[in-house]
Amino acid sequence: MKKHNYSAGPCILPQEVFQKSAAAILDFNGSGLSILEISHRSKDFIAVMEQARALALDLLGLTGKGYQALFLHGGASLEFLMTPYNLMTKAGKAAYLETGTWAAGAIKEAKAFGETVVVASSKDQNFSYIPKDYTVPTDADYFHCTSNNTIFGTQMKTFPNTGIPMVCDMSSDIFSRQMDFSKFDLIYAGAQKNMGPAGVTLVVVKESILGKTGRQIPNMLNLQQHIEKESMYNTPPVFAVYTSLLTLQWLKNLGGIAAIEQINNAKAELLYNEIDRNPLFKGTAVNEDRSVMNATFVLADESHAPVFDEMWKAAGISGLTGHRSVGGYRASMYNALPLESVQVLVDVMREFEQKVSG
Amino acid sequence: MKKHNYSAGPCILPQEVFQKSAAAILDFNGSGLSILEISHRSKDFIAVMEQARALALDLLGLTGKGYQALFLHGGASLEFLMTPYNLMTKAGKAAYLETGTWAAGAIKEAKAFGETVVVASSKDQNFSYIPKDYTVPTDADYFHCTSNNTIFGTQMKTFPNTGIPMVCDMSSDIFSRQMDFSKFDLIYAGAQKNMGPAGVTLVVVKESILGKTGRQIPNMLNLQQHIEKESMYNTPPVFAVYTSLLTLQWLKNLGGIAAIEQINNAKAELLYNEIDRNPLFKGTAVNEDRSVMNATFVLADESHAPVFDEMWKAAGISGLTGHRSVGGYRASMYNALPLESVQVLVDVMREFEQKVSG
Repeated sequence: MKKHNYSAGPCILPQEVFQKSAAAILDFNGSGLSILEISHRSKDFIAVMEQARALALDLLGLTGKGYQALFLHGGASLEFLMTPYNLMTKAGKAAYLETGTWAAGAIKEAKAFGETVVVASSKDQNFSYIPKDYTVPTDADYFHCTSNNTIFGTQMKTFPNTGIPMVCDMSSDIFSRQMDFSKFDLIYAGAQKNMGPAGVTLVVVKESILGKTGRQIPNMLNLQQHIEKESMYNTPPVFAVYTSLLTLQWLKNLGGIAAIEQINNAKAELLYNEIDRNPLFKGTAVNEDRSVMNATFVLADESHAPVFDEMWKAAGISGLTGHRSVGGYRASMYNALPLESVQVLVDVMREFEQKVSG
Repeated sequence: MKKHNYSAGPCILPQEVFQKSAAAILDFNGSGLSILEISHRSKDFIAVMEQARALALDLLGLTGKGYQALFLHGGASLEFLMTPYNLMTKAGKAAYLETGTWAAGAIKEAKAFGETVVVASSKDQNFSYIPKDYTVPTDADYFHCTSNNTIFGTQMKTFPNTGIPMVCDMSSDIFSRQMDFSKFDLIYAGAQKNMGPAGVTLVVVKESILGKTGRQIPNMLNLQQHIEKESMYNTPPVFAVYTSLLTLQWLKNLGGIAAIEQINNAKAELLYNEIDRNPLFKGTAVNEDRSVMNATFVLADESHAPVFDEMWKAAGISGLTGHRSVGGYRASMYNALPLESVQVLVDVMREFEQKVSG
């Protein structure tokens, strides 16, 4: 039976990416060698890295605007640390918006480096909304925010104009919606949502903001080092970079972010309409801040959970269980999840209603 | 034509590992899902991580001896930084043996943390030997060495008794030879030689040496955090961990390190005998320090290079070009390289001799 994979990450990637990456493990580019056994200094892999870096900038509309794209080790969690290392001056401070668990993680790492101002937090309401009224101190070295909160199903629809460098963790919604990415000076994203397998992180940085902290930065954490070494300061995660390239090429062929945004909006609309219509369900995030990527919802009556759980599992749906911080359900609708999978879920929700109300 | 892959890393892995990892990308464990799209919190992947951690300790003979095995992001280069963060006290110092480029890289990162004593270096002879006569200060927080020097083709055959914590970068010879691994307190190794694809690092640490520095350690660099979170502090590089498990299982089924050591010794003996016998070649490393993993050699007369290069390429050999720091050739004979591939190279060297001596 076909699986409808709602996993929050690692998550579904395009089927053609699975086919091509599996084929490359058996024979990469007709070389007679596996993608897993070639040197990262080989001509073929250097081409992969260069294409991936260029295509990431292209899709974000940042080509020729002073940005560099890097594919690094460590996950977004290492960027929590690299951000203050690379951007917070020795006597300086940073401003953070706290919109969820990962934002809180970034704040925790920054605090070890210097004054870290939390400009606003939605912790008081279990991160079910995005704070709107806050002031970013103009003397901070940077402002850090999280564009989409995977666990709580909220998403920033607008971003403040701060006048200081803007840093954004876009792990769970990069490449999913159009925006003016040149508003940001540093963007990072773990690959394992819209870009590729777990094990590589995309970092997009405006070169002009670097080299200003006065800190001695360890080589592996130094963005200038990574830029100088063309994203190969050490052996890169070859397979994860290659599979990310395949995914970015799939997106480019589809029509880029403009095209996928329409599909993503259609999926989210279909599901949220059902959550709002169906009396057996309640959304957990404030309506205006609902995420197009991760829809979080609970049952109006939790005693029905065994019935609903059996029904969606029987329909081939997987990964729908909500994060323990919210409970209930979470439908992650990343780029590669087809509209038909959302229709299957909505159909199950309707059948469930008939069964329970019936 | 069958390829004989002498790449220094990423490098050849067992053919059955390529088959199984490619199959898992199309369908993992009969789940209907790709290994690339499953949650790292799924039961199936937690089992992979637990098996990989246990099998690594088992193969090293460290089960039940107070060690923890972790599969982390970042490559060995991140461990250059994590080592002083986790082991160097605030007012303390560390002792390093400089045997090559990577040892020098580790030293460079440590220097930013505190006094870093280089107890001996073979830099004077382009790292063509392993220093033997040196004293390790007993008041250092730890002693760091590199068991095998991929670039220069040297390998430590014995290790000093220091009385202080022993740290060893075993990236390029872990799981290749028997030794008393309990002599070491911290072992790390990038996967991309004898263990798996690039993008994951094995860290084996004796728990009792941690927590003594007085430093505030960033979470992602804190080995105690990684132990507490069972090697899932953040999303692990799922595919690289899985493929590492497959490679470790292959080794276990073969008879473990004792069995592969015999094969590795046979491969090295075959090649070094030919290097020493054939008047057209010269080894670059001092005989007693020659690496069983990486054999470095040059032509007695470099003008013959075009002829030799054409011959080995025609025989299906790849990745034989030496590192720019040494020149000439480097035959990397990691665990998965079959003896027959070494025989093919030796045959080419003999045919080359006949052709040139004609």
